Amino acid sequence: MSVEQYFPFWPKLTDAQRDLLQSAVSSARFEAGNILHAGSSDCAGLFIVVKGRLRAYTLSGEGKELTLYRLLERDICLFSASCIMRSIQFDVMISAEEPTDVLRIPPDVYKTLMEQSAAVAGYTNELMAARFSEVMWLMDQLLNRKLDSRLAAFLLEERGLSGADILPLTHERVAAHLGSAREVVTRLLRYFQSEGLVQLERGSIALTNIDGLYRTAGDSLR
Amino acid sequence: MSVEQYFPFWPKLTDAQRDLLQSAVSSARFEAGNILHAGSSDCAGLFIVVKGRLRAYTLSGEGKELTLYRLLERDICLFSASCIMRSIQFDVMISAEEPTDVLRIPPDVYKTLMEQSAAVAGYTNELMAARFSEVMWLMDQLLNRKLDSRLAAFLLEERGLSGADILPLTHERVAAHLGSAREVVTRLLRYFQSEGLVQLERGSIALTNIDGLYRTAGDSLR
Repeated sequence: MSVEQYFPFWPKLTDAQRDLLQSAVSSARFEAGNILHAGSSDCAGLFIVVKGRLRAYTLSGEGKELTLYRLLERDICLFSASCIMRSIQFDVMISAEEPTDVLRIPPDVYKTLMEQSAAVAGYTNELMAARFSEVMWLMDQLLNRKLDSRLAAFLLEERGLSGADILPLTHERVAAHLGSAREVVTRLLRYFQSEGLVQLERGSIALTNIDGLYRTAGDSLR
Repeated sequence: MSVEQYFPFWPKLTDAQRDLLQSAVSSARFEAGNILHAGSSDCAGLFIVVKGRLRAYTLSGEGKELTLYRLLERDICLFSASCIMRSIQFDVMISAEEPTDVLRIPPDVYKTLMEQSAAVAGYTNELMAARFSEVMWLMDQLLNRKLDSRLAAFLLEERGLSGADILPLTHERVAAHLGSAREVVTRLLRYFQSEGLVQLERGSIALTNIDGLYRTAGDSLR
């Protein structure tokens, strides 16, 4: 459970700060579908992904989801500790997409370190800037890319994450990722099928023309 | 040209840090329409708005604008110093909306202070979190609010900024703010006129039913 390897600021901490951080860390495991953080009222702390995958998303008033970004191995989830900054005034949901092992750092401990150490606060700036960049990328996509290229890019991204050409995804899940309606996604997937890009089965989508999907995705690939 | 009043971290700086910051500050004036910062290749430094108004916006590949947020008196523009953080990987444009007096802090000076002082780095975190919150608010608007309520909210916001009921705005400017097409905005403004909410003149929009605009804006008001 050593956190040393996850934080580039470790060499700049004092012995007392290292002790404080290391003794406060605990480990936890979440099953696929578990929600780790539900909006700004929650403040469980920072999560470090040791193994598995987390998804950050927003929820509209009517319950429509939109995936903001994914957190993979060694990524650090800052917004699950949103109470450490009073200017974070938005709600992000974090859930596990597969069985996920994490290390948890309590928010008060991290806040203390941020207040004492310019290295910790600077690192936190970089973390937030990285997430901000992902959200700005997504906003450009939403405003300026057509849904067909976003759908193709999403399918290729899922393929990259799972390593398989058959994706166990319902149309509802795809719509939630893209912030779109289920009917719209179903229509587009049927069009993709008629073009030979995918083969639709109950509860899964098989990618049958990877080159074609890359062409359709175009600039929408990250 | 004292910067003391603008930075809450001032009392936590050493004398040497105060001297460094104070001696590096310069003042500048921008006319309405001047561009202060054009994407991540620019890195003029932090700007403090002394008087006037700045607008932060994005630009799509086809030149479509979308207003992200405004910076008013005493606000600090962080992204014009985007080179101080390597994780800022998106392009924001900053322009003056009216004659604007600013104080400028060179990026290398601010970066030095951030590296030395947890208070400066922590303050920078709060600045970024505040802008991040505005962008998340905007994304929710774009995804989940109808354009009519966003248009009404925008007109009321402009009224608040200018203090007048007659707004010198072309339909093109309104479309650029909302990230929409000029034709769509013109159609909606004509509908607003038929409802008695506004009176359209060449190059201006008169607000004729403030209560009605508030009702139309609903949840879209910040």
